[in-house]
Amino acid sequence: MSALSSQPYKGTRDYYPEDKRIQNYIFSVWRKTAESYGYEEYGASILEPLEVYTAKSGQELANEQTYTFVDRGGRTVAIRPEMTPTISRMVAARRQELSYPARLYSIANFMRYERPQRGREREFWQLNVDTFGSDGVGAEAEILTLADSIMKAFGAKSEDYVIKINNRKLINFMMAQYLGLDVAQAQFMIKLFDRKNKITDKDFTDQAAEIFGEQAEVGMQKINALLQAKSMAELPEEIRESETVREVQELFTLLERSDVASAVFDITLMRGLDYYTGMVFEVYDTHPDNNRALFGGGRYDGLVGLFGAEPISAVGMAPGGTMMENFLVVHGLLPKFRSTTDVYVAALGDVAREASKLARDLRAAGINVELDLSGHKLDRQIKTAIKKAIPYVIFIGEQEVASGIYTIKNIAKSEEYKLGFAELLNKIKESR
Amino acid sequence: MSALSSQPYKGTRDYYPEDKRIQNYIFSVWRKTAESYGYEEYGASILEPLEVYTAKSGQELANEQTYTFVDRGGRTVAIRPEMTPTISRMVAARRQELSYPARLYSIANFMRYERPQRGREREFWQLNVDTFGSDGVGAEAEILTLADSIMKAFGAKSEDYVIKINNRKLINFMMAQYLGLDVAQAQFMIKLFDRKNKITDKDFTDQAAEIFGEQAEVGMQKINALLQAKSMAELPEEIRESETVREVQELFTLLERSDVASAVFDITLMRGLDYYTGMVFEVYDTHPDNNRALFGGGRYDGLVGLFGAEPISAVGMAPGGTMMENFLVVHGLLPKFRSTTDVYVAALGDVAREASKLARDLRAAGINVELDLSGHKLDRQIKTAIKKAIPYVIFIGEQEVASGIYTIKNIAKSEEYKLGFAELLNKIKESR
Repeated sequence: MSALSSQPYKGTRDYYPEDKRIQNYIFSVWRKTAESYGYEEYGASILEPLEVYTAKSGQELANEQTYTFVDRGGRTVAIRPEMTPTISRMVAARRQELSYPARLYSIANFMRYERPQRGREREFWQLNVDTFGSDGVGAEAEILTLADSIMKAFGAKSEDYVIKINNRKLINFMMAQYLGLDVAQAQFMIKLFDRKNKITDKDFTDQAAEIFGEQAEVGMQKINALLQAKSMAELPEEIRESETVREVQELFTLLERSDVASAVFDITLMRGLDYYTGMVFEVYDTHPDNNRALFGGGRYDGLVGLFGAEPISAVGMAPGGTMMENFLVVHGLLPKFRSTTDVYVAALGDVAREASKLARDLRAAGINVELDLSGHKLDRQIKTAIKKAIPYVIFIGEQEVASGIYTIKNIAKSEEYKLGFAELLNKIKESR
Repeated sequence: MSALSSQPYKGTRDYYPEDKRIQNYIFSVWRKTAESYGYEEYGASILEPLEVYTAKSGQELANEQTYTFVDRGGRTVAIRPEMTPTISRMVAARRQELSYPARLYSIANFMRYERPQRGREREFWQLNVDTFGSDGVGAEAEILTLADSIMKAFGAKSEDYVIKINNRKLINFMMAQYLGLDVAQAQFMIKLFDRKNKITDKDFTDQAAEIFGEQAEVGMQKINALLQAKSMAELPEEIRESETVREVQELFTLLERSDVASAVFDITLMRGLDYYTGMVFEVYDTHPDNNRALFGGGRYDGLVGLFGAEPISAVGMAPGGTMMENFLVVHGLLPKFRSTTDVYVAALGDVAREASKLARDLRAAGINVELDLSGHKLDRQIKTAIKKAIPYVIFIGEQEVASGIYTIKNIAKSEEYKLGFAELLNKIKESR
């Protein structure tokens, strides 16, 4: 038999301990921040019926990017490409039992069949934060404030990112009333706006004119008026008078009150998913080397109702792990991590029994101990500890066993101490 | 469109916050114990090429229980049904860079297409703990001691479980030299022993006789001699003299030294997976209501070599989440959990701005705060906090805003206190 490949499945990543430490750091900041706002963790299976996504996630995601197959029982299933339909299903199943507003979060893995590229992987990890049962703009304000708190918890400053905010109702009003587009034209125009940053201005203008058809001239004037508006106050008057603008203004008042300084209104922001019904937002990295959307979210009031329950309002967002990691790297915000192991115990000579006992006693005192009984030479054992980023090495040989005094080396400081067991504990604990 | 089902995919579980708290508790005990032995966390994608499992996991697992499909690029892939081939692949890919012994663990989700039953789910979560590069029996001793430490960390006593230990080399010796079976017969006999606890004694005897064929009478006498042996000392002499028995005895000496009181030798223990090459073990619940295998593991020295790298020795194990939960339930070892949210802030009247500020100040001090701006009546808000298992409710109305003195209710004790902000913090923190 020829050898099997040792590479991970295409577009996915193996997380060795040094990679996993970074991921765990990101997860822990997410978890801590979400829990500080009273969100509680949930979990669900990676498989769902495909129809859960065809219903409302949008054609591209459901038909082109989803890992779909027929199971041994004949069911057409998908590996989840996103969490929103799953948590909506779970809320629908316990519609009567849950207390509202229900604040829920999860950290989970997803798959999408995409062309692998920087920041995009076929398997990816996301935090999902959702609040159910709040109709008021306070729910949007809370999710956006939480998004801002997450960025701040990673050490980001307000100028490191911008939170672009728009509203689907405003988009629909703009498409139908202001631009005079029918439903099919509006769909095309929304997709075109969604791609705006990825194509040239000329391509954008040409394709927009094509959508307008005979009304291209008037249409393009109106679009240019839109694009020139740098704030809500500069929007064309017909749009400024719509009911939704007042809602957006109220949201910005709440955000200001919560010191969210990175929020801006952006009439060109669309978001790709079909299920959004109100506010939509995206957080953008402002760093020139990573000038892209980091994550987004919005209000999706119609989704729970698809699962046979009375509809319930919902606002949520979903930051991704690799996107976050790239952000931290370009802004120099990624801390240096050490191993979860506190100390490497190197047994020298025939002291396996005593070294095991020392390791056991250290563990009982809450210290994480790797015990090396390999009999390798001392400098090889120290190299191993350095490679694993373990901060301390304790040597134990016959002399140490006889005296009860151990030699402990602080690797970063390149210092050695000779200490009894109790002092050993203090030395190790002080560095955590 | 008819409503979508709100039920999870067949054989899988939705983890609402009260279920997720239990799972998180199990994960945290696993994590803490594995890290106390110097194991470091890794992660990998849920998809692998199917051939990774057909190679060595055994026919049943690879062909009947694996979720398999062809991806959009024509690759035949599987959702991982176990972690051992993945971590072997990862070690093979970094064969030169890793330090040995490499101690690695993960907590991850898996899928198997099985008939759903108690303790068995189609999606399940496992801890995988593996050590690579140790040939000596010390590696087996460490994994078994760690298994024992995990059980103890959950509060189990030694008599609550039994660790049955056998050795594949001994099994092979027994099949070929002692029972005189050829390779094909030995395979059938191993599977039969593996099923022994699930079938009647008569079925076992009949099927064993059938495997022996003409040698049935002598064969059955030898098998009975095996089954009567309650310890290694009582094994038939021909087996007792094999090289492997000395290895098993050395392992038991090490386990005794580490105070592992639950370990017993069991010549009938086989383990289903094909890749084991030495020690195999299973941890059994001794409780009459849950008398079953909880998890197992063993030595699998040949697996890394399948991925094109020089072979490297390996010992590992994999406890499962739901199995562990069932164990904790029948033994009354599952703690009562509260919400991760410390306090529920109930705003009464027109104080949204001040309530938001209070919530923000509490969060800044490290308190997890759910803020209710719904305007619901007081008793409804208290009910919500109780339902969510949040220990404290703070009321804030116009009077509290004016005085800076808040009313805080300890739900479990049904006591109320009137406190300023600093005392509020202490009150909440003392209960954690």
